[in-house]
Amino acid sequence: MSHLFIRALKGEPVERFPVWLMRQAGRYMPQYRELRKKVSSFLEFCSNVKLATEVTLLPQHLLGVDALILFSDILVPLIPLGIEVKFVPGEGPLLNAPSPEGWKPFNPDEVSYVYETIREVKKLSDLPLIGFAGAPFTLGAYIVEGKTSRDFKEIRKLYHSDRETFDATMTKLVEMLKIYLTHQVKAGVDAVQLFDSWAYTMSPSMFEYYANKHLRKLFEYLKEEFPSTPVIYFFRGSGHLYPAAKRLPVDALSIDWTLELEKALREIPDKALQGNMDPTILYADEETVVKETRKLLNTVALHRKSRYVFNLGHGLAPDMELQKVKLLVETVKGFKLS
Amino acid sequence: MSHLFIRALKGEPVERFPVWLMRQAGRYMPQYRELRKKVSSFLEFCSNVKLATEVTLLPQHLLGVDALILFSDILVPLIPLGIEVKFVPGEGPLLNAPSPEGWKPFNPDEVSYVYETIREVKKLSDLPLIGFAGAPFTLGAYIVEGKTSRDFKEIRKLYHSDRETFDATMTKLVEMLKIYLTHQVKAGVDAVQLFDSWAYTMSPSMFEYYANKHLRKLFEYLKEEFPSTPVIYFFRGSGHLYPAAKRLPVDALSIDWTLELEKALREIPDKALQGNMDPTILYADEETVVKETRKLLNTVALHRKSRYVFNLGHGLAPDMELQKVKLLVETVKGFKLS
Repeated sequence: MSHLFIRALKGEPVERFPVWLMRQAGRYMPQYRELRKKVSSFLEFCSNVKLATEVTLLPQHLLGVDALILFSDILVPLIPLGIEVKFVPGEGPLLNAPSPEGWKPFNPDEVSYVYETIREVKKLSDLPLIGFAGAPFTLGAYIVEGKTSRDFKEIRKLYHSDRETFDATMTKLVEMLKIYLTHQVKAGVDAVQLFDSWAYTMSPSMFEYYANKHLRKLFEYLKEEFPSTPVIYFFRGSGHLYPAAKRLPVDALSIDWTLELEKALREIPDKALQGNMDPTILYADEETVVKETRKLLNTVALHRKSRYVFNLGHGLAPDMELQKVKLLVETVKGFKLS
Repeated sequence: MSHLFIRALKGEPVERFPVWLMRQAGRYMPQYRELRKKVSSFLEFCSNVKLATEVTLLPQHLLGVDALILFSDILVPLIPLGIEVKFVPGEGPLLNAPSPEGWKPFNPDEVSYVYETIREVKKLSDLPLIGFAGAPFTLGAYIVEGKTSRDFKEIRKLYHSDRETFDATMTKLVEMLKIYLTHQVKAGVDAVQLFDSWAYTMSPSMFEYYANKHLRKLFEYLKEEFPSTPVIYFFRGSGHLYPAAKRLPVDALSIDWTLELEKALREIPDKALQGNMDPTILYADEETVVKETRKLLNTVALHRKSRYVFNLGHGLAPDMELQKVKLLVETVKGFKLS
């Protein structure tokens, strides 16, 4: 029988809802910060197979989660395209990219450390391993903006002022992602998650254009090539974008707190759901964390007994407490489906 | 007969839809940049009655808009509370605030330059003048965060971890806003807009709590004290927050592009609407700007012949072209309701 996490995604019977957390191996963990000290740059940290493997495995014992997620960064596969990526501490990433026609053809071997990390983790753990990548819009938003931003205006500007370059950017990113994710699946990941963190800056009509013309192609490819590997699409701005997102050919939608879970359960009956707790609830006292988590799980259980994976609506933050994160995981694991 | 803008807000007959734009007097205008050079700090710029009056009036002749909006900043009324506010060029505002019990009672005379500017503008122009303030959540988000941010996590953290302080912060801000806006109305503004720019970071349930417990009190007060002064509530994140927002006692909702205008027209039939064009459409070529504007106006005209004010979903950006902004305004003014 496959693992709880995979069964939940596929709608097979589960005894409880599985749990993992975005950025579960991150700066909030003292053990992560210790490992981080061993190398000087963040990119070196991601590309060091031994360290990336250790980091990926940290949440298994420290939190007791039901799935691991590859430790890497969504910007890693942009480097083989000839895009310059720098991580400046305290500032976030800085990128320098030529226009899409100047990108190099994606050579997956240039990031072979990613697949090696996957193989290493699979040797050392029986937990399902999630591979991942940034969704084309979010990668494009970084590329065009050149840095992190509040509203990622530049990519929307490009969409309205030069649709041809916008489409070329999305097309090239989809092509890269097909190859990159194929290599991750072949190296052994059990599921794949696409991160569309900046999707919330789009209007419903722009999102529909992007989803139908570009994103869909990536998901159709994955479904055809790897029908048994569940695909999860995480998109922020779920509250206004879910009507188009729910038509995408993916197994699960990972939603943020802008879409009430109750509403998602009602309006997206035919897909697995993941999320959507506001991560800032983890700053509340322990009693509140337990109460809010149980309330959420009770809501889910009223609607379905499988096809749900507990997660937050966004990643864990560096100033969160490991003990409280652990309590959250234990609360989910203690919630039995009768 | 009252002015087009006021008639449109009140649902009285109009021959065309009125237009004004958020940040219509701003850095994108060479004339604004010239005036800005006359003083060293941004706060000095806001508090200089002569300059603030000139800036407020700029869009009347340069754009031909149907309403003016007081030139000021939403953080201005925080200063009399004893909150330190600094504008650092290129960085945005920096704030330093004691906890709410340490705030000084709001003395409206400390920002008398705001009301003087209103009186000056009213002497020099026959256009309706919009007074404004930041909504309590957005002001609270700045106060608790201490600076601008992408996700304004600190205020949500406060909401979940210390509800008492969150409520005290909102309560004190609502009390300040009642006094501040009363003085603006008495000085002569014809309508009032509340800006909730960071509302989009809230979940629907958190927004509902805030809207019902705090925001509603401010709007009820304004409705009771000044029943003939239209009140507009601008909130970003309209796509997921409109179900609670549409129950607020305001005359108009100003929405962003996360809520399709067609849907807003259908689901909010009993309030005036303002917005919601994505400002980045202004980076497209002139033909596209005209086409998109007419498309939007046609959509509105299919649903209603009044109770709509053209605006963008957010403010104009410094890198926009004055000529294109003018074209946008002219396109709206050329669209006659038959």
